[in-house]
Amino acid sequence: MYELGVVYRNIERADSATADALAKLGSATVHEAMGRVGLLKPYMRPIYPGVPVSGTAVTVLLQPGDNWMMHVAAEQIRPGDIVVAAVTAECTDGYFGDLLATSFQSRGARALIIDAGVRDVKTLQEMNFPVWSRAISSKGTIKATLGSVNIPVVCAGMLVTPGDVIVADDDGVVCVPKAMAAKALEAATAREANEGAKREKLASGVLGLDMYKMREPLEKAGLRYID
Amino acid sequence: MYELGVVYRNIERADSATADALAKLGSATVHEAMGRVGLLKPYMRPIYPGVPVSGTAVTVLLQPGDNWMMHVAAEQIRPGDIVVAAVTAECTDGYFGDLLATSFQSRGARALIIDAGVRDVKTLQEMNFPVWSRAISSKGTIKATLGSVNIPVVCAGMLVTPGDVIVADDDGVVCVPKAMAAKALEAATAREANEGAKREKLASGVLGLDMYKMREPLEKAGLRYID
Amino acid sequence: MYELGVVYRNIERADSATADALAKLGSATVHEAMGRVGLLKPYMRPIYPGVPVSGTAVTVLLQPGDNWMMHVAAEQIRPGDIVVAAVTAECTDGYFGDLLATSFQSRGARALIIDAGVRDVKTLQEMNFPVWSRAISSKGTIKATLGSVNIPVVCAGMLVTPGDVIVADDDGVVCVPKAMAAKALEAATAREANEGAKREKLASGVLGLDMYKMREPLEKAGLRYID
Amino acid sequence: MYELGVVYRNIERADSATADALAKLGSATVHEAMGRVGLLKPYMRPIYPGVPVSGTAVTVLLQPGDNWMMHVAAEQIRPGDIVVAAVTAECTDGYFGDLLATSFQSRGARALIIDAGVRDVKTLQEMNFPVWSRAISSKGTIKATLGSVNIPVVCAGMLVTPGDVIVADDDGVVCVPKAMAAKALEAATAREANEGAKREKLASGVLGLDMYKMREPLEKAGLRYID
Amino acid sequence: MYELGVVYRNIERADSATADALAKLGSATVHEAMGRVGLLKPYMRPIYPGVPVSGTAVTVLLQPGDNWMMHVAAEQIRPGDIVVAAVTAECTDGYFGDLLATSFQSRGARALIIDAGVRDVKTLQEMNFPVWSRAISSKGTIKATLGSVNIPVVCAGMLVTPGDVIVADDDGVVCVPKAMAAKALEAATAREANEGAKREKLASGVLGLDMYKMREPLEKAGLRYID
Amino acid sequence: MYELGVVYRNIERADSATADALAKLGSATVHEAMGRVGLLKPYMRPIYPGVPVSGTAVTVLLQPGDNWMMHVAAEQIRPGDIVVAAVTAECTDGYFGDLLATSFQSRGARALIIDAGVRDVKTLQEMNFPVWSRAISSKGTIKATLGSVNIPVVCAGMLVTPGDVIVADDDGVVCVPKAMAAKALEAATAREANEGAKREKLASGVLGLDMYKMREPLEKAGLRYID
Repeated sequence: MYELGVVYRNIERADSATADALAKLGSATVHEAMGRVGLLKPYMRPIYPGVPVSGTAVTVLLQPGDNWMMHVAAEQIRPGDIVVAAVTAECTDGYFGDLLATSFQSRGARALIIDAGVRDVKTLQEMNFPVWSRAISSKGTIKATLGSVNIPVVCAGMLVTPGDVIVADDDGVVCVPKAMAAKALEAATAREANEGAKREKLASGVLGLDMYKMREPLEKAGLRYID
Repeated sequence: MYELGVVYRNIERADSATADALAKLGSATVHEAMGRVGLLKPYMRPIYPGVPVSGTAVTVLLQPGDNWMMHVAAEQIRPGDIVVAAVTAECTDGYFGDLLATSFQSRGARALIIDAGVRDVKTLQEMNFPVWSRAISSKGTIKATLGSVNIPVVCAGMLVTPGDVIVADDDGVVCVPKAMAAKALEAATAREANEGAKREKLASGVLGLDMYKMREPLEKAGLRYID
Repeated sequence: MYELGVVYRNIERADSATADALAKLGSATVHEAMGRVGLLKPYMRPIYPGVPVSGTAVTVLLQPGDNWMMHVAAEQIRPGDIVVAAVTAECTDGYFGDLLATSFQSRGARALIIDAGVRDVKTLQEMNFPVWSRAISSKGTIKATLGSVNIPVVCAGMLVTPGDVIVADDDGVVCVPKAMAAKALEAATAREANEGAKREKLASGVLGLDMYKMREPLEKAGLRYID
Repeated sequence: MYELGVVYRNIERADSATADALAKLGSATVHEAMGRVGLLKPYMRPIYPGVPVSGTAVTVLLQPGDNWMMHVAAEQIRPGDIVVAAVTAECTDGYFGDLLATSFQSRGARALIIDAGVRDVKTLQEMNFPVWSRAISSKGTIKATLGSVNIPVVCAGMLVTPGDVIVADDDGVVCVPKAMAAKALEAATAREANEGAKREKLASGVLGLDMYKMREPLEKAGLRYID
Repeated sequence: MYELGVVYRNIERADSATADALAKLGSATVHEAMGRVGLLKPYMRPIYPGVPVSGTAVTVLLQPGDNWMMHVAAEQIRPGDIVVAAVTAECTDGYFGDLLATSFQSRGARALIIDAGVRDVKTLQEMNFPVWSRAISSKGTIKATLGSVNIPVVCAGMLVTPGDVIVADDDGVVCVPKAMAAKALEAATAREANEGAKREKLASGVLGLDMYKMREPLEKAGLRYID
Repeated sequence: MYELGVVYRNIERADSATADALAKLGSATVHEAMGRVGLLKPYMRPIYPGVPVSGTAVTVLLQPGDNWMMHVAAEQIRPGDIVVAAVTAECTDGYFGDLLATSFQSRGARALIIDAGVRDVKTLQEMNFPVWSRAISSKGTIKATLGSVNIPVVCAGMLVTPGDVIVADDDGVVCVPKAMAAKALEAATAREANEGAKREKLASGVLGLDMYKMREPLEKAGLRYID
């Protein structure tokens, strides 16, 4: 439930070194490292592929078909932030285009995560400003109704609190609460470290059945092989 | 982002007289009275129509295809509660049927709000146990993985904190944070009081254009009448 | 493409006797009689079943999340009309509830067809005011942006011109252009007259294969029976 | 993959006593009794609620927007059959209305399961002919292209072989292969027998946690209670 | 509502210089310049990105699963045209592939906008023939039922009259009625001219809040800043 | 209806030369050559475009949110196989990532067709391991419940029997039953041979109307040209 018409100026951001380091681990590994939680719904897709990012969340709550608060949010961006935008109802309108992207980028924003639509996607790619959205749409918006900036929002089914870490890549978007960021980084790094050796074994033909010692539990569960 | 494997036993519930009084005002009026916020997504539909309810939320976080935590939640129900169930991924399986409903009802639960599927819907109607869900499905679930009970959850796009008031009817489901419940009741009651007179006027043929004094602002906005 | 900010006051309505007579023939028969055209998309569903209606269209174009023009439309309603509401973008908000229904009904409207959401559905059924919509939602709307009244609109994929006949029942909604209404009534009546005899034959066990003389064309098309 | 243009006249049907007996056990219980398989996708919904049925499958494969084969199928129906209709592409057109229902009913069909649309739903309810479908639509169909009758079809994601048992109710539709029907009946009956005692216990306030002895496995899995 | 079985050979096309000039302004700018109308639904996506086009509409109305009229439409194409295809029901079949594209291209068509599916997408990209569609599907179609060519059609929710200008790019598709084309070009060009200066300002760090003078209206609307 | 907990080790695969040869003909041509059947639903999309493949099917049936059987399936892969994975309920979780892909690739698998989600899509592209899926999702899975390997499965609406040929490209996925593979190759090759001449004619400006001799049947069907 949302408080409307407010802008919180002083939010506590997760440690920036931690936030920065999570990008290269990727959304899947970070999600697993946190105990398999934190993902936004999979309908959130990158408007162009190939750009993994991480950063600290500046949140914005929008009204349907109204992007007024995006301009308010721009002022609250600091270098290293990722803007996370939620809407009070389902909407696919194009809330964001190349002008807002120019403004966000000049403030130091790394990306936009928006549970709605965006436009000017070709220019956004040329500007190298990545966006994860539920839609692409030319549909314009008005500027008439207040939402809020830097309140906790639910974006694509996930609660995002201002200052949390966002990790986004071609696989999706994950939110890491700031209190868990250091631990998540550590766990994800450990998980990642492990993967090189596993990959090598699997590439050499060793089966996961053997590497993970699954044959016995599968047999216990009743698996039968038939020739 | 969710804490897994925990059950909070002592939650602070909204005042029960307030919670009880909100049902008859309805989800639309309460949502308007709070400033047009608090609604779960409209894909949440009653499995049978005609039963407005309100009560205090006991929350449960479920894993996909796994209803183990529903049994854990049953023990935390007190008379006047409404169980609000979220899932860590999109799922339409039938997590809940007549046996769980019998248990919930015997504990005093008034309804279930679940962002997944339910089954035995004919029996649930005969038992007079209302459910709002995203799906109806015979698909059964397993009992293998922990979720949590009475943590804040995101259900159908809305954050629900244990003890919040839930108001549900044929129009949808709204969550009223416990800190706002008294004020929401007051505002909704005032709004409702107003409606009788308005309805009478409109029934007599008075136009909303005149009753709400819209002709001038419409003209200012540029509306043109063409004969 | 839409002209915004205009209200056409004098529209030419289809002949009212014709418009009235189409209800009892039903949307499927009328659609077939016109050569299998005219249907709105099947996501348009009655909010409660069992009420076939027909009448002349008063159209309204709405902006997303904004029901201002519904009040403007109310004044243009004459007895026997059905209001047809389109939105400039996809939206499921609850544009219409019991107050507007009271106003529409007092002006003589028979139904609402809306490519968006409505609320107060229980009261609408008690008032006996039928609605076909794409959604049911408590979500409220604002009054800030102009649309139009009585311009041609596209509602759920079908072009509806003011004054056209709308036929709606549990099977869906069909639009009959006013220029075709008399011919459609005639053709639909003929079609209907035919059906009683067919139904009797089929009920007695005669097969459609024989009644429609399909055996030869099926054989020509290559159908093979295998024992 | 489908054989087109063929009608198999002599299919082996499941034992009729078994097929008849499954209706009252319901789709959810039968699905569980078979090891949690056999369900059609949950988008298949009854066009009106409250009628549990079971019977032996006569299958029909349809082309998009073409209901020719429904007439061919009618001839293959025997008393106690349920017609299961699949389409070679996704389609919501209204393939079936009151005339075909009259024909099917006169041949002894108990219901239709169709992965497409139907129309005349009000009349179908008055005739007491239940249908489970993916859509309701007035849209008519043509008779131009061959499909097949009584070949194995995939309907709403489930393989249905002619003569299999179909069990359908408000919770959904399940297919029981004829070779498994007797065993499924036995297992479902046993399951059902069990439920009365469980329901009584739960109604008296015993928790599932205790009745199913879940406390220990939950503790082992790491569940923590916090006061 | 559609007239079936007709081909209009002499349509009035929008001025070709105007039609050609709109491509580089883009669908979003043109839509804004017309007063925020004219867009097809955002489910219409390019089968490959990066190709902005504009041209005059040749329209075709198709029957579900039947592409016969596409061949009829081919003959009506003139250099600079864009074919706009609607279907009388929702359908995702592959109506169009490399052979039809070869024919369309040889007639001078610049693109296809189709509210259905297409196939041979890899070859279409190699041929440099852009398509905006609702689906990609290998599913073939038949040639059995008449539709029409060059009648007004509703494509993806928007009315398109033969000869209107179509503007399509990665953001979506907009229809500009021929009577408005000159004015739309002028307004869009003015809008575009404006954007360079704005972009520069925003890039230099000036906020939209200041550039658009939003601080006062936001304050009036009640926005509160909290430190 | 599925047999659970079994792995068939000795499946009969379609002839490998035939299976290999179908890739370059493409899913659309092969589907047409078989009489317009065999396609999986069009929601199955390549995670990256441009890689046509064909091979013999190893099938796996998965439980919702559980990828245990993928490891069991890995052992059954032989060079030239394509793994086809179905789930017992609708699910978009990420069942498959770079580690499993490494294992599958080292066993000789050419691709994965999965009616669920996958992750690590950027790495999968770098590895040149193509996947057709219904979703992309970071969401992890558990290993708790048995499915089966090498039983007939329904994947995206199509029955796939182990050893059948799978043909997949940017247009979609088609299943060729092994008994029909040789004939399908022959028919598709003939069809393809034909296309070059047609393409040349169409490119030179000959109309399909003339090339396919459609003018007469169109006239017979009642097509009217209006000047």
